[in-house]
Amino acid sequence: MKKVAIIMGSDSDLPVVEKAIDVFKQYQVPFEVHIYSAHRTPDKTRDFAVNARKNNIGVIIAAAGKAAHLAGAIAANTTLPVIGIPIKSSTLDGLDALLSTVQMPSGVPVATVAIDGAQNSAILAIQMLAIEDETLAQKLQKSKEENEQKILEKDSKILEKYN
Amino acid sequence: MKKVAIIMGSDSDLPVVEKAIDVFKQYQVPFEVHIYSAHRTPDKTRDFAVNARKNNIGVIIAAAGKAAHLAGAIAANTTLPVIGIPIKSSTLDGLDALLSTVQMPSGVPVATVAIDGAQNSAILAIQMLAIEDETLAQKLQKSKEENEQKILEKDSKILEKYN
Amino acid sequence: MKKVAIIMGSDSDLPVVEKAIDVFKQYQVPFEVHIYSAHRTPDKTRDFAVNARKNNIGVIIAAAGKAAHLAGAIAANTTLPVIGIPIKSSTLDGLDALLSTVQMPSGVPVATVAIDGAQNSAILAIQMLAIEDETLAQKLQKSKEENEQKILEKDSKILEKYN
Amino acid sequence: MKKVAIIMGSDSDLPVVEKAIDVFKQYQVPFEVHIYSAHRTPDKTRDFAVNARKNNIGVIIAAAGKAAHLAGAIAANTTLPVIGIPIKSSTLDGLDALLSTVQMPSGVPVATVAIDGAQNSAILAIQMLAIEDETLAQKLQKSKEENEQKILEKDSKILEKYN
Amino acid sequence: MKKVAIIMGSDSDLPVVEKAIDVFKQYQVPFEVHIYSAHRTPDKTRDFAVNARKNNIGVIIAAAGKAAHLAGAIAANTTLPVIGIPIKSSTLDGLDALLSTVQMPSGVPVATVAIDGAQNSAILAIQMLAIEDETLAQKLQKSKEENEQKILEKDSKILEKYN
Amino acid sequence: MKKVAIIMGSDSDLPVVEKAIDVFKQYQVPFEVHIYSAHRTPDKTRDFAVNARKNNIGVIIAAAGKAAHLAGAIAANTTLPVIGIPIKSSTLDGLDALLSTVQMPSGVPVATVAIDGAQNSAILAIQMLAIEDETLAQKLQKSKEENEQKILEKDSKILEKYN
Amino acid sequence: MKKVAIIMGSDSDLPVVEKAIDVFKQYQVPFEVHIYSAHRTPDKTRDFAVNARKNNIGVIIAAAGKAAHLAGAIAANTTLPVIGIPIKSSTLDGLDALLSTVQMPSGVPVATVAIDGAQNSAILAIQMLAIEDETLAQKLQKSKEENEQKILEKDSKILEKYN
Amino acid sequence: MKKVAIIMGSDSDLPVVEKAIDVFKQYQVPFEVHIYSAHRTPDKTRDFAVNARKNNIGVIIAAAGKAAHLAGAIAANTTLPVIGIPIKSSTLDGLDALLSTVQMPSGVPVATVAIDGAQNSAILAIQMLAIEDETLAQKLQKSKEENEQKILEKDSKILEKYN
Repeated sequence: MKKVAIIMGSDSDLPVVEKAIDVFKQYQVPFEVHIYSAHRTPDKTRDFAVNARKNNIGVIIAAAGKAAHLAGAIAANTTLPVIGIPIKSSTLDGLDALLSTVQMPSGVPVATVAIDGAQNSAILAIQMLAIEDETLAQKLQKSKEENEQKILEKDSKILEKYN
Repeated sequence: MKKVAIIMGSDSDLPVVEKAIDVFKQYQVPFEVHIYSAHRTPDKTRDFAVNARKNNIGVIIAAAGKAAHLAGAIAANTTLPVIGIPIKSSTLDGLDALLSTVQMPSGVPVATVAIDGAQNSAILAIQMLAIEDETLAQKLQKSKEENEQKILEKDSKILEKYN
Repeated sequence: MKKVAIIMGSDSDLPVVEKAIDVFKQYQVPFEVHIYSAHRTPDKTRDFAVNARKNNIGVIIAAAGKAAHLAGAIAANTTLPVIGIPIKSSTLDGLDALLSTVQMPSGVPVATVAIDGAQNSAILAIQMLAIEDETLAQKLQKSKEENEQKILEKDSKILEKYN
Repeated sequence: MKKVAIIMGSDSDLPVVEKAIDVFKQYQVPFEVHIYSAHRTPDKTRDFAVNARKNNIGVIIAAAGKAAHLAGAIAANTTLPVIGIPIKSSTLDGLDALLSTVQMPSGVPVATVAIDGAQNSAILAIQMLAIEDETLAQKLQKSKEENEQKILEKDSKILEKYN
Repeated sequence: MKKVAIIMGSDSDLPVVEKAIDVFKQYQVPFEVHIYSAHRTPDKTRDFAVNARKNNIGVIIAAAGKAAHLAGAIAANTTLPVIGIPIKSSTLDGLDALLSTVQMPSGVPVATVAIDGAQNSAILAIQMLAIEDETLAQKLQKSKEENEQKILEKDSKILEKYN
Repeated sequence: MKKVAIIMGSDSDLPVVEKAIDVFKQYQVPFEVHIYSAHRTPDKTRDFAVNARKNNIGVIIAAAGKAAHLAGAIAANTTLPVIGIPIKSSTLDGLDALLSTVQMPSGVPVATVAIDGAQNSAILAIQMLAIEDETLAQKLQKSKEENEQKILEKDSKILEKYN
Repeated sequence: MKKVAIIMGSDSDLPVVEKAIDVFKQYQVPFEVHIYSAHRTPDKTRDFAVNARKNNIGVIIAAAGKAAHLAGAIAANTTLPVIGIPIKSSTLDGLDALLSTVQMPSGVPVATVAIDGAQNSAILAIQMLAIEDETLAQKLQKSKEENEQKILEKDSKILEKYN
Repeated sequence: MKKVAIIMGSDSDLPVVEKAIDVFKQYQVPFEVHIYSAHRTPDKTRDFAVNARKNNIGVIIAAAGKAAHLAGAIAANTTLPVIGIPIKSSTLDGLDALLSTVQMPSGVPVATVAIDGAQNSAILAIQMLAIEDETLAQKLQKSKEENEQKILEKDSKILEKYN
């Protein structure tokens, strides 16, 4: 199976990104994790992106804050789908990272998820891998049903409490 | 090959969405187009989404404006990857559609592209289909190189003009 | 008397929503509480909405955060008035939930109250039920006068302190 | 049947507000229209609101732009449900009117619809009147089904065009 | 000398408003303090405003948060200058109160100061009273010079530390 | 009578500022008009402000766009009340000018009116001059009543049309 | 003298960027113009930046819209000062480009000017070159004085008209 | 070597500004630090700016919050490059300071860095001084490479942990 690569711009993004890692472990989807910065290690970031497809990577997740160029810098150098996680930092409540990640020019898309949406970035990556993978698709379906069940159980509890 | 489904919430979104259609024609990727609304045809939208995978659809693109729930309503009912295009409408310059599309809760991602970013939604869909499809990947790579070439030609012209 | 249904997208919304519950208890207006998610339990949410009128519900309150589609998803499936409470979450200070709730397309309104405005959602629901119910209208009027009185008492205290 | 009162802060709001009037004509719901300003005719606005219930009004719609206080000023003086339409003006794209209308303090709710959302304000008012009025509820249901049908017809046309 | 009236919409605004009170005490400008709400005590607010000029008030300061209508509601009922202090509340970082206070329609101005800018509201009120009052103007000038001096002393200290 | 000085940062602001001039002509309040820029004629701006009080000026109005420092630069150099008009320019819809004008630091207030709110800046200036001037106060009151009357006439016309 | 390089992400940015070119012509500062895109010609952009200093370039100006990464991508690959011009595009009024340009992470600054602020980008570049160049500094000073003079002449004209 | 002057509007800005000071110490670039306010010490600020070039200053850094006029007020009075640091304060998350600093009118640029971006302001100042200074340029290059190395070391550690 193709691997998912998770790139973060700074090790301070790790507490958010760990939620993506947990999802991949749970789904037993192979992944690798890197700290590369669009601005501080531009060549390494480029080389990673250029070689990602031949290194058996299928999807790339990039997490960065503020003027978050990381996902775009990777997307510029690969034809693999790139998922961007805008990270909230100490100012502007994540809006800067969101706009820097999502407002990409024509020709170079970034699949943007919610601010700090690491868990969803992983599910989205698995959905991409599952387009042609029936087993993975069934795992996604099962998880969807479990999530539904969890809500319905919470609903039952609240019915007992209030109704 | 899996098809891409393009859903728009209103026929007024068509001028934007047509840029996605053009891309699919150029890449000879099979697609289908629908007008379904999360709020005005909720059951049809749901049924479409529930049956999409078994109808040989691989990726779904959803375009909507204002409180743009369409991509989310589809993502709630499928495990296929769903790409959201926030459409700019007459107020708030597209910010409402962007936030309504991208800020999805954990468990149900939407791969959001730029406001009115229909062309990129199509490229992103093709990137997803190309994860395991070498021929399609090469077409993407070729297009990337052509885009690069076009910029370099424009650069040459501007060099003549100003330098 | 018709009941009010209060739906929240997640049990994490309960601390906000409880202020609505308190109002209904105080006014002795019958209510029921549910946890349904537009994205995680879409069918349950739909079925609830479709059957609400026949289940003697008169008004529905829906509370959700981020890309808050819950109120819209319910409004799509009922002709009852739906009140939306945008819930503030960890990013963007509630602006995403506000825009996702209020900017509804023509044909499917959501009566939106302030971010985290649960108390007002309940008063608004009771105002709707009181259009034709003189007793309830008098309770609202009495409460309005008591609120006025409380402010005037605070004004008296501050007059003593500063003037 | 109770009437709906539509109040606008300025006659420049009429082109937007007319979409509400059209809905009431279509549903044969009695209505009256006024131009009252929270800031330029405060006493008239207050007197209108104080007497609205006894004047057989069931719901009040208030449309205003910029620092849109009209809906709030009316809600302060009645226990009837008040619907606010934030009107887009020449600066800030309607955000000022939206926040001024929706962010009401506890005790005095305003049921806010989308910026320039006059059509939805009328539908919402009718939904309130229809809580206990089965005939009106059926008209709403029929209109909902017609809207659904219109979308499905547009979908058929687009299917012919593209698929 | 004319008095300054300070009105706040809720006693929760007092910690901010106290900075205005301190300024009036320091300048020995007579003032009175009230808690009146545009929405919860509309008649009292109106009556206060209507009678302010004849009650020897020269300037009115109004502090309110969220959909802050208080300053506008007072300005609607007096020809005295009204200063608005937008108060930051738990959502939207004060932007709602700022826009609701400052974006007044033609004919009814509110002199708006910064979010939570109570100290400046008092200085502005004194500047208004000092237009024709040379003694007060000299106090303002002296305070301006003292503030300048304080900065220059801080500059001296920092010069010692770093230069 | 004290004069009002109207300063604009650029002659491109004149179409907005003329609405203030019209008000002063109508009220027969003496005024003078200048084009001074905080950034392009800083010394002239300073000298104007420093000497304003002794030049018989009572209130200063400053209009500027973008990073609108003009009102603040004047307020830094006078103890007269300074009214700021944020001017909408080609980007950001006036929000930049509004925040640059209103968010003044403690000690140096600017009385900010709405974006492009020139008419209100003039009324506010006259309100300040009218604190101690009964004749001017009566003119303001008369104008207020005429504005009220105009709205009520428009209300009568709309009553004929729709009711 | 060192040259200034002006890079724009797309030839659609040229109408804005030409205002910078005019300034360099007027000051007789040598410059070169390129169209390079951070996302479509990433290697060319990188190579340009890596070699800029040795190619006798002293300052780099980068203009880009939407998720404007160009200035940052260049700054990542040079120790020359990089000036960023955020370009307004069809959505979000330039806010996306501003935040994407200015909110750079520690270690890699971009000297950001106003949205569409091409003229100022050129003046800023010349100011940098003039730190050690007395002749250029005098040209800047002369231009500053001419600008001041122009405003004062406009002020004289307006004095004739209104005073 | 030319000095860098660091001006802050208030001593409360010092914790942010100290990061700039640390950079200058590390690079052994001479600097001086001042507390001058555009609004509270306007003449001192002007005099500093007017004399900066002759006092051997090469670059000026100005840090201020809210309606941050300091950088603009200095830029109005010098032809030296002025770097602005927008400081986040208690409301609006730094957006007010950013817009007040960056949106300068034509003719008077401010080189704006990120909100609270003091470290980058210092690096940018050194980049300006290094345009013609090969030794300083090499120090910048070395620091750039060290930063790159640090990221790569963090990447190695994370590789051990997760891969």
